[in-house]
Amino acid sequence: MPSFARPATLRELAALVGGEIVGNSELMIAGIASLEKAGPGDLSFLAALGHTREFLATGASAVLVGRGRGSAEAEVTVVLVDDSHAAVQRVLEEFFPEPDVKWGVSPGIVVGASVRWAGRIAVGTGSSIADGTRLGSGCVLGRNVVVGKDVEIGDSCRLDDGVVLGDGVRLGDRVSVFSGARVGTPGFGFVTSGKGSKRMPHPGGCIVGDDVEIGANTTIDRGTIEATVIGDRTKIDNLVQIAHNVQIGTDCILAAQAGLAGSTVLEDGVMIAGQAGLAGHLRIGAGARIAAQSGVIGDVPPGATVSGYPARNHRDVLRQVAALSRITAILDELEALIPDDGS
Amino acid sequence: MPSFARPATLRELAALVGGEIVGNSELMIAGIASLEKAGPGDLSFLAALGHTREFLATGASAVLVGRGRGSAEAEVTVVLVDDSHAAVQRVLEEFFPEPDVKWGVSPGIVVGASVRWAGRIAVGTGSSIADGTRLGSGCVLGRNVVVGKDVEIGDSCRLDDGVVLGDGVRLGDRVSVFSGARVGTPGFGFVTSGKGSKRMPHPGGCIVGDDVEIGANTTIDRGTIEATVIGDRTKIDNLVQIAHNVQIGTDCILAAQAGLAGSTVLEDGVMIAGQAGLAGHLRIGAGARIAAQSGVIGDVPPGATVSGYPARNHRDVLRQVAALSRITAILDELEALIPDDGS
Amino acid sequence: MPSFARPATLRELAALVGGEIVGNSELMIAGIASLEKAGPGDLSFLAALGHTREFLATGASAVLVGRGRGSAEAEVTVVLVDDSHAAVQRVLEEFFPEPDVKWGVSPGIVVGASVRWAGRIAVGTGSSIADGTRLGSGCVLGRNVVVGKDVEIGDSCRLDDGVVLGDGVRLGDRVSVFSGARVGTPGFGFVTSGKGSKRMPHPGGCIVGDDVEIGANTTIDRGTIEATVIGDRTKIDNLVQIAHNVQIGTDCILAAQAGLAGSTVLEDGVMIAGQAGLAGHLRIGAGARIAAQSGVIGDVPPGATVSGYPARNHRDVLRQVAALSRITAILDELEALIPDDGS
Repeated sequence: MPSFARPATLRELAALVGGEIVGNSELMIAGIASLEKAGPGDLSFLAALGHTREFLATGASAVLVGRGRGSAEAEVTVVLVDDSHAAVQRVLEEFFPEPDVKWGVSPGIVVGASVRWAGRIAVGTGSSIADGTRLGSGCVLGRNVVVGKDVEIGDSCRLDDGVVLGDGVRLGDRVSVFSGARVGTPGFGFVTSGKGSKRMPHPGGCIVGDDVEIGANTTIDRGTIEATVIGDRTKIDNLVQIAHNVQIGTDCILAAQAGLAGSTVLEDGVMIAGQAGLAGHLRIGAGARIAAQSGVIGDVPPGATVSGYPARNHRDVLRQVAALSRITAILDELEALIPDDGS
Repeated sequence: MPSFARPATLRELAALVGGEIVGNSELMIAGIASLEKAGPGDLSFLAALGHTREFLATGASAVLVGRGRGSAEAEVTVVLVDDSHAAVQRVLEEFFPEPDVKWGVSPGIVVGASVRWAGRIAVGTGSSIADGTRLGSGCVLGRNVVVGKDVEIGDSCRLDDGVVLGDGVRLGDRVSVFSGARVGTPGFGFVTSGKGSKRMPHPGGCIVGDDVEIGANTTIDRGTIEATVIGDRTKIDNLVQIAHNVQIGTDCILAAQAGLAGSTVLEDGVMIAGQAGLAGHLRIGAGARIAAQSGVIGDVPPGATVSGYPARNHRDVLRQVAALSRITAILDELEALIPDDGS
Repeated sequence: MPSFARPATLRELAALVGGEIVGNSELMIAGIASLEKAGPGDLSFLAALGHTREFLATGASAVLVGRGRGSAEAEVTVVLVDDSHAAVQRVLEEFFPEPDVKWGVSPGIVVGASVRWAGRIAVGTGSSIADGTRLGSGCVLGRNVVVGKDVEIGDSCRLDDGVVLGDGVRLGDRVSVFSGARVGTPGFGFVTSGKGSKRMPHPGGCIVGDDVEIGANTTIDRGTIEATVIGDRTKIDNLVQIAHNVQIGTDCILAAQAGLAGSTVLEDGVMIAGQAGLAGHLRIGAGARIAAQSGVIGDVPPGATVSGYPARNHRDVLRQVAALSRITAILDELEALIPDDGS
């Protein structure tokens, strides 16, 4: 549906994605769309098996197809590629470039006296940066962004509209924080004594590695006495809650609305699906996968896949649910089988 | 508890809601309250069966009652109406009018050079509207609202304090976006190759129909190559997550904290209760109902009601839970019944 | 890891927390860290049993230990205290003082004509306070805070960056609202008639007691005809949804991502764990505990602990899950036991 910033020949497109054209390489391509919606001049792609019907019926001028997807029967021109997702990514990146950044500090924004940055910076209207904060080169801050005191931000970071970074937060290089995310808020901890509760101070801070993404309206609390840590290349979706003292390794993925209670540790490469919740003080082993909506109340070994509440081996859960669907049908009969005297 | 903007006779009230007074039509009414809390001068209402005791004991001067609710025995004056909820809505609308809008653009807000709007507009302090955006007539933007580039907004839209609309978002007429909602944020998609992952660009945009409501702190990602779509009259509550490429039909209801993963399709009139989660690439048939906290991992046929994880027929789930409550009591005995040799 | 604002002798620290030193009281302490990470000059603490190994191996100069935790064998200097959590709280409060507040109203913020406050106030840049609002003494408003019309705020309240308070909201004394929370947004209610749905007005407001905390990006809707109420000393974590007309008692705790549907009542001292969801119009008895991810669809008696969906006695749920893990192993055999003729 959306149009390329400029049209291109299929030959140029194929070269961009390292693909092999089967058909007319002189076709002009001006946009990209799904198989169903594409029309003349559009590129499309066969993302997964099971879409053969749409593929055969597409109105696209050309289709990106992973090698070995059995496209021989198609009449449309195809571009054979190693990985159709990667090819789409490359095409979008090239033909839908990010809008040009207006470098500079918008008039009216408030920058603390001792704020420093390297190279160029872009800061949108309504934003403010408090004293003692340092930013790397090439950072882009949207509008109404609030950056606390003594924050350290690496190079090429992106803070979208309405983001708030609390005092003392540290971001690595190439970190993206999306709209409305709150990083480094005080944790939820109280000490209850006879005459009410007192808030636990949270001087521990929050340290975010390189190439991390933090989704819209996500909240990350800072640590009590040690930092809440997000490892390099970890990607966090929208509306995720990360409590104080959580330690997340590298290359983890946290889908939307997941929640991690205090002091839980994710080793590297953990995947947490949407709406899953993890209790506090747990250790989730490297490469473990937590299915959507899981309620994890114990440690998870490396490489395991768990689901359900309380979370347990995912295959067992599926078998148990299947058993449940049989059980009501036979439980009455089974109950009748129990001898009255228990013998 | 709250007082009307002006007192009114019960006669006027009854006329407003098309009701029939059984009792004193000259009563002066100055406020509205629940049956338990209402006092002299208050109107109240019998919202549901099962509140007969409160009804008989109420201190209200008059009570709105749905016809056929068996109010004959009451001593209080009643106003018989077809639909007590609709009557309350009408009364509240009339006697608690929205505060007058201060039309005009507050000083200090930033409006891009090529922004255009029709008729009148209200924009609160701290807000900004980027280049290329067009607004219809009668739009009301609160404070600290951020509107992206090339956004199209219909007539009579309401963007409450702190709302962010991303670049290229399109809203129909009479759309309300509540405080802190983020519409049109980049989706959560990555392509992983040998040397790390790359963000998938999201030029697909986000299209919101007429009469849609989007709740506080809700997040709606924009699409990859096609728009994320919210159909006419769909109502979305607070803290809901809608991922990239989701297609929502007309007249759907999404309760608070529900989450939809990428590319899932809701046909018209689907109801999704609170905290339910839907996996990606699903199709939910027209009029289907997804119970609270359901974890939906497969398509749902039109008109079905599902619950549980994985979500299945709601009645089956209730029967299975009932079976579970019996099972621990008999499982030991059953196990003993299994012959040792399996014969 | 973090350093104290000033070093102190262990004697001073012990006096601060009412502790008894076993070892060298002249040690200089300059920071606090976990047992594993502490080094010379650091205080640490033994928070729970089961950390004996870390305790014996710690590099800390001194360790706070609850009396009776069996620290006799340690070589490190210990400070025996009644409650190690309370002692840590006191130490953090003393040695990591909150940054000094810059009292006064930042230039450029917008304050309505009839806004009044007592004593001193601090308001950060980008914030605005609408007409008719009154604040007590010593309130601290962050940056980009939006306060509606006719709001009443008590003494010593804290509204962090990006908070929005809707019109007519009332906060008691010492209320903390963290970044991005929305208090007093219009509730989610519609009246559907033949020709579409109409929004139910919400003039009921929102009343928050003393010493309440409201977490980051949490949403609290205002009531329809009566106020949504949050009782004294109730603590609400991040990303919690509280719908219109909810009544929460005193001393309740709501963990992150919990959700309460409309008109539900929590009596005093209720604890709601993370991601739990409560249907509307329920009554949760005093002191009840709702386990993480529970889906509560009926009233809960005082003092009960429930979990699961639909939520039921927590112990039963655990037994049922245990039964499930046995069931698939025996169900096939059981099914074979059912006589074909049912006799």
